[in-house]
Amino acid sequence: MTAVTTWILTLSCPDRPGIVAAVAGALAGLEGNITESQQFGDPVSGLFFMRVEVQVDAPREDLTRVLDPVTSAYGMTWDLDVVGRPLRTVLMVSTASHCLHDLAYRQRSGRLPIDVVAVVSNHTALQGIADFYELPFHHVPVTRETKAQAEAELLRIVGETDAELVVLARYMQILSDDLCRELDGRVINIHHSFLPSFKGARPYAQAHARGVKLIGATAHYATADLDEGPIIEQDVERVEHDDDVAELQAMGEDVERRVLARAVRWHAEHRVLVDGRRTVVFR
Amino acid sequence: MTAVTTWILTLSCPDRPGIVAAVAGALAGLEGNITESQQFGDPVSGLFFMRVEVQVDAPREDLTRVLDPVTSAYGMTWDLDVVGRPLRTVLMVSTASHCLHDLAYRQRSGRLPIDVVAVVSNHTALQGIADFYELPFHHVPVTRETKAQAEAELLRIVGETDAELVVLARYMQILSDDLCRELDGRVINIHHSFLPSFKGARPYAQAHARGVKLIGATAHYATADLDEGPIIEQDVERVEHDDDVAELQAMGEDVERRVLARAVRWHAEHRVLVDGRRTVVFR
Amino acid sequence: MTAVTTWILTLSCPDRPGIVAAVAGALAGLEGNITESQQFGDPVSGLFFMRVEVQVDAPREDLTRVLDPVTSAYGMTWDLDVVGRPLRTVLMVSTASHCLHDLAYRQRSGRLPIDVVAVVSNHTALQGIADFYELPFHHVPVTRETKAQAEAELLRIVGETDAELVVLARYMQILSDDLCRELDGRVINIHHSFLPSFKGARPYAQAHARGVKLIGATAHYATADLDEGPIIEQDVERVEHDDDVAELQAMGEDVERRVLARAVRWHAEHRVLVDGRRTVVFR
Amino acid sequence: MTAVTTWILTLSCPDRPGIVAAVAGALAGLEGNITESQQFGDPVSGLFFMRVEVQVDAPREDLTRVLDPVTSAYGMTWDLDVVGRPLRTVLMVSTASHCLHDLAYRQRSGRLPIDVVAVVSNHTALQGIADFYELPFHHVPVTRETKAQAEAELLRIVGETDAELVVLARYMQILSDDLCRELDGRVINIHHSFLPSFKGARPYAQAHARGVKLIGATAHYATADLDEGPIIEQDVERVEHDDDVAELQAMGEDVERRVLARAVRWHAEHRVLVDGRRTVVFR
Repeated sequence: MTAVTTWILTLSCPDRPGIVAAVAGALAGLEGNITESQQFGDPVSGLFFMRVEVQVDAPREDLTRVLDPVTSAYGMTWDLDVVGRPLRTVLMVSTASHCLHDLAYRQRSGRLPIDVVAVVSNHTALQGIADFYELPFHHVPVTRETKAQAEAELLRIVGETDAELVVLARYMQILSDDLCRELDGRVINIHHSFLPSFKGARPYAQAHARGVKLIGATAHYATADLDEGPIIEQDVERVEHDDDVAELQAMGEDVERRVLARAVRWHAEHRVLVDGRRTVVFR
Repeated sequence: MTAVTTWILTLSCPDRPGIVAAVAGALAGLEGNITESQQFGDPVSGLFFMRVEVQVDAPREDLTRVLDPVTSAYGMTWDLDVVGRPLRTVLMVSTASHCLHDLAYRQRSGRLPIDVVAVVSNHTALQGIADFYELPFHHVPVTRETKAQAEAELLRIVGETDAELVVLARYMQILSDDLCRELDGRVINIHHSFLPSFKGARPYAQAHARGVKLIGATAHYATADLDEGPIIEQDVERVEHDDDVAELQAMGEDVERRVLARAVRWHAEHRVLVDGRRTVVFR
Repeated sequence: MTAVTTWILTLSCPDRPGIVAAVAGALAGLEGNITESQQFGDPVSGLFFMRVEVQVDAPREDLTRVLDPVTSAYGMTWDLDVVGRPLRTVLMVSTASHCLHDLAYRQRSGRLPIDVVAVVSNHTALQGIADFYELPFHHVPVTRETKAQAEAELLRIVGETDAELVVLARYMQILSDDLCRELDGRVINIHHSFLPSFKGARPYAQAHARGVKLIGATAHYATADLDEGPIIEQDVERVEHDDDVAELQAMGEDVERRVLARAVRWHAEHRVLVDGRRTVVFR
Repeated sequence: MTAVTTWILTLSCPDRPGIVAAVAGALAGLEGNITESQQFGDPVSGLFFMRVEVQVDAPREDLTRVLDPVTSAYGMTWDLDVVGRPLRTVLMVSTASHCLHDLAYRQRSGRLPIDVVAVVSNHTALQGIADFYELPFHHVPVTRETKAQAEAELLRIVGETDAELVVLARYMQILSDDLCRELDGRVINIHHSFLPSFKGARPYAQAHARGVKLIGATAHYATADLDEGPIIEQDVERVEHDDDVAELQAMGEDVERRVLARAVRWHAEHRVLVDGRRTVVFR
């Protein structure tokens, strides 16, 4: 005897008539009760995206069995997970603590369905925070010479912990193209600027010099093309002429942690699907 | 031979398994292509709500025919309309012009799917604006003695123009309970306050006296229970200690017109469904 | 020999011509360099408010000496402090940790000029957080019978630590009228609602039942008249029809900590002056 | 005998001690009552900026006389105007009507202290709106060959109407470097993007392709260096993955008119002072 479970089904495929009926019909065959369903057909890419939450009193095998003909017929890329299952997550940090603090706090308070299996840092400054939240801390120093070795170590940790997600929570190192490709779609970065905008170094100083009236932050998937990965979430904060660079940075940190927390939550809840350079976010 | 039309189907019924599959299956029988679909099951009221946009190469009769068994089986309240068809709308105003201006401008610029069939006012101050936008203007004065007569005249105009929606665009008269019931779910009011909050007269003066840091506006369906109708949209604007009542009012007018325009658009696009005292808004 | 210090002068008095000139003239007598100056004359209360930051190469006695004739002549209430001096602060909490976490984190990261001299709680649940941030923790249980005794203990702690500010950081007890009067203008409360609005218990449940589209939080000075103290800061977050009470509460906590952090910072920087039931906030 | 007038004094000069006292002292000599005063010393540029509203029972000559020694001593650039005096303004438009509508409406409703002395357009599409608001309309066609001639005509209109401000209210022509220099600090442009960001043509299409989650608009002073003039105001609006380019544009127009209206009001109220590439905005 099985208990009723709520499943999340996400899928994408070339758009054509009948997809919703086919999926809903297959689930109805198991007496599934669809409690949430969202979809989007992108007229530009020609792709169709769908996210369904469905209560079913049946094991995963049954779901897979009834879905198989549909996913094959429509050429779907798809995924099936249980609602609320925490995503095994590696947090990568350097010395700035605001994002680590915020994500760890949200996990502990039950607001964020992730399970931080490792905190990896090229410094030791944040070990105390990891200890407080009882998160395994790995110090992996990086120099120009040891970069390849450090990335190998990161991959080892990801593999060993069976991590599903890597969050660059103000990790001040650029990942190699190879690593980006290896972990494609599984690495979220928080960019301390409102993309597309001040790229590169010291964005708050650039923002101050340009005299902007809003500063922002952008959470996006990391890709080999730096700062060009699909955007998941952005937000801004109003600034005044008398806010100096330090104040912009302090306000920026508040936006960064807010934006990153939202992006990680939506990803962990399987609400984000990649559509070329864009994302579909089923909030 | 018919052309492909995009239809909007909205429905609500008691929640139980199989609704999505039944609806999607019926539409698939006509080779319908679902381009947008949203749903919500309210665990509190036990009601299920759904909005579907579907492209079908068939006349309304065919749609009605395939949907009939489904809507009967599930006890659905439902509605079927063509995407983009302008809703015949009566605007009611007094002397404040900002909402009239904004709605008329948005209709003309093609941003708002309404067709203003009448502007009704208890004053003549705004006739010039109605004339500029070539909207039929009706002066229906109201005094305590003539209120019943004025409401009868309003109903006559609504009937004669076959109006589907009445917007109280800063109409400073309270509708009678009877009229509210007669037009239930078809009257949208803009309340110059952030409900639930300063009710009754002079809310901006009350807000100033209380020293609030945000002022807001609320668009809601008008019900006999004043200011208690289901909320469609709300928004706020930040205010400072040196904003006097006149400035609060000026800022408030900006919020009012923004909030009202959104509420009217969502209603006209059949995105708003009433769920007891609450609304479901499928944006 | 003295070093150049930046002072903050705040003052209020009945409004009449010449105040700015008198104050600026007195400070110019010490070769003071005014780096920031804000003022507000409230036409309703007839009161004038001013906040000046001034760099002076002189001790406090000199400042007091040159200001004395001015403050006497105009009947000023005034205060003089050094920029950046942390305010000795008592945090009062119960079991909800989000505000404590946020304030402690901001103090440690140097973003908030407070020095938390005590964390007082009627529970022990948050002792671990206080320990992590190395803040002295006091467990002061409260029952109906021991309320007077508990408040006496609180006053003792405030006195012993020479605390200048008490922050009710989700402290779920109502302070007695006597205590409110005793600490008048020195107690900041975070109210989990957008005042004036859902007062009393379970505001998020009330907000959900009413179907609001925004939820908010309000930081205000605590007064004997519950929820009626002068408002310092408010903010809101957008909610959707499918956010249940638990989600409203989670989103509400984010707004609460943001609003409270701003209010505490502005108070600690002497940017908030009370004007009857309202506040003047010189941001 | 003169009536009491409220004056706005704005000034900037190299920063050094004593400026506030000198200005306030001079005004106190005329029994002036300072009702609003804001200042900012920019540590980067070394410049000091001030805006004072002062009630004086004296003619302009007296004010000029008492201020002369101060402005000379400190090397001030300064300006003196009467509160509420409408700024003579030329609006330049092409075919998009939203900004023209909004500014004209705000002027008529008394919310914007400008006096539109001419609407200049390279098309005739918006003549009806100008007529409705009783604003003089000038059709000045522009081709590559006649550009110099058209700009000469614009300058003639500016001169003839004694215009103090030119607003590019979605005027789709680039002004020549010479004209920008000629009208330096007196031309406000609304840029349909969140600067620094998508520059050049079709920013909403670029924004859509990049998959941004916020779109914005920027009001700035026009300079010879296109899109690089000092920013006065910016704002954003949240967008979703299913908003197509047309919807982004519709939402963008709402942001544009809001941002432009604020920038024009602040400029007309002498709240904006230019500080190199940045602006000081005394709101």
